[in-house]
Amino acid sequence: MDEFALIRRYFTDGGVMRADTVLGIGDDAAVLRVPDDRQLVVTTDSLVSGVHFPAELQPDAIGHRALAANLSDLAAMGAEPAWVLLALTLPEADERWLESFSEGFFRLARSHHVALVGGNVARGPLNITITAHGLVPSGQALMRKGARPGDAVYVTGHPGDAAAGLKLIQSGHGDTSNDCVQRFCYPEPRAAAGIGLRGIASAMIDISDGLLADLSHLLAASDVGATLELAGLPLSQTLLASYPAETGRHLGLTGGDDYELCFTVPNERLSELHRRVADLGCEVTRIGSIETEAGLRLRDEHGNLKGTDSLGYRHF
Amino acid sequence: MDEFALIRRYFTDGGVMRADTVLGIGDDAAVLRVPDDRQLVVTTDSLVSGVHFPAELQPDAIGHRALAANLSDLAAMGAEPAWVLLALTLPEADERWLESFSEGFFRLARSHHVALVGGNVARGPLNITITAHGLVPSGQALMRKGARPGDAVYVTGHPGDAAAGLKLIQSGHGDTSNDCVQRFCYPEPRAAAGIGLRGIASAMIDISDGLLADLSHLLAASDVGATLELAGLPLSQTLLASYPAETGRHLGLTGGDDYELCFTVPNERLSELHRRVADLGCEVTRIGSIETEAGLRLRDEHGNLKGTDSLGYRHF
Repeated sequence: MDEFALIRRYFTDGGVMRADTVLGIGDDAAVLRVPDDRQLVVTTDSLVSGVHFPAELQPDAIGHRALAANLSDLAAMGAEPAWVLLALTLPEADERWLESFSEGFFRLARSHHVALVGGNVARGPLNITITAHGLVPSGQALMRKGARPGDAVYVTGHPGDAAAGLKLIQSGHGDTSNDCVQRFCYPEPRAAAGIGLRGIASAMIDISDGLLADLSHLLAASDVGATLELAGLPLSQTLLASYPAETGRHLGLTGGDDYELCFTVPNERLSELHRRVADLGCEVTRIGSIETEAGLRLRDEHGNLKGTDSLGYRHF
Repeated sequence: MDEFALIRRYFTDGGVMRADTVLGIGDDAAVLRVPDDRQLVVTTDSLVSGVHFPAELQPDAIGHRALAANLSDLAAMGAEPAWVLLALTLPEADERWLESFSEGFFRLARSHHVALVGGNVARGPLNITITAHGLVPSGQALMRKGARPGDAVYVTGHPGDAAAGLKLIQSGHGDTSNDCVQRFCYPEPRAAAGIGLRGIASAMIDISDGLLADLSHLLAASDVGATLELAGLPLSQTLLASYPAETGRHLGLTGGDDYELCFTVPNERLSELHRRVADLGCEVTRIGSIETEAGLRLRDEHGNLKGTDSLGYRHF
């Protein structure tokens, strides 16, 4: 089956119709209408087989994860997802693989009302590159910069679950009934939280490279530092049941692929956060505070401060 | 060197500043402003090593071609290029390769005033996926549909040159002083022509898969057919000097990678086309006419009609 037939068969109808799509798939490019009072938010991310996921991962999870990684970046800007383009490079036209992949992809796309408006299919080693477009009221995008000393540091969900799930899969215990395995295979981008935190968060980033690594990017962009309270880290019951406490904490601090959001909130907006928390679609947990002094410090249960080097983690 | 260092070093400053870029590279996503009277035109295209270009091709040509392929799709819609995102998957952080690649990429980006506003770098087999964004006055995008019986069929430049250049490279005669080799390595997207043909062309497509294949897509989308005059095919002197006449014509009709534009013009707009031709930045040549009867026919120098199957080309 040639490229055009593949596209027609698996990728033309995701079931999402948007009035602001002037022209979708099937021409040299898509034509889209951005409302006058909105700014366009755009991000691109690639998943490479054997690098970002085990080659044998079920295809619907690959389709889901590839889209989720991009929708998570939109969420981290406070943008509402709207359109995506999919560039798929694959070694052969395996129809069962494509059917499962597109099922995972479109299931998530529909749940976020995201329309696939363009794409490309090529032969080659498996590579999924998605470009996602979202909309945000002009001037309200949440950025990595903006955190101020005294702001509270929050995280959504349960960091570490996805990394724990990947470890379970790699060790041959990747039963999808395990919550951590589910979180690795089918991460839920925090779109509602991103949108709900407009006007509340002073800075935000998504956790794709691990909490410490990504929070460090936020701190550097904001020119501040932070101390995290290790006792406050919201590790999940499943994570703690699957691994010893030390391993669990390490996964929570450094494990990637969670696609949770890390954000900061000024004190004067904490009550507004508490009022709005039911609309965010996920738990949010305070894990520390922004400080003037650059760098990232960890305070343990006994009140002792330590640097992040003590975790054997130096990638930032 | 890690991903972040690579991005900083080779991809943060392309030297293009745009007032409509609210936030560029360095956050979870870019934030862009689309003017009220414009629609957004978006396309994505991948180049895979060994599939879309010889693995040993000079890196600056790879960078140029990857961007040109996308800008050509924008041109085919009549859109003015504005922003691009680059997802680069590469096996190792070869700094000489990256320096040359980014030089070729940014040279072309600057010449079209295109800003790089986002990207991703990952380890894996070489794959370059670009997503390009352009702007078009609302309602004026040129599409594949719209051609009507009686319209003239035109093509820009000299189709077949790029395919001839690739053949020369593959046979070990890829001297870049040869015009055809230049056209393969450094195709010039027809942005000025695309913009200048707004309001003149009734339908348009870019020739990336070959003149016959892409014109056939236009005909199918417009629900019409066409006859091409083989004697009118604007084959270049270099092409004809490098290959026998039959081979040259075959390359002109079926060779891919040219990134020229094929478009149709209603009779009543031909005089306007002639007035505006000096602004298009390239030659345009009439090669045939749109007809009611579906399909694509070729008329040779003796007036004999033949089907496209006679070329041994059936891919459409």
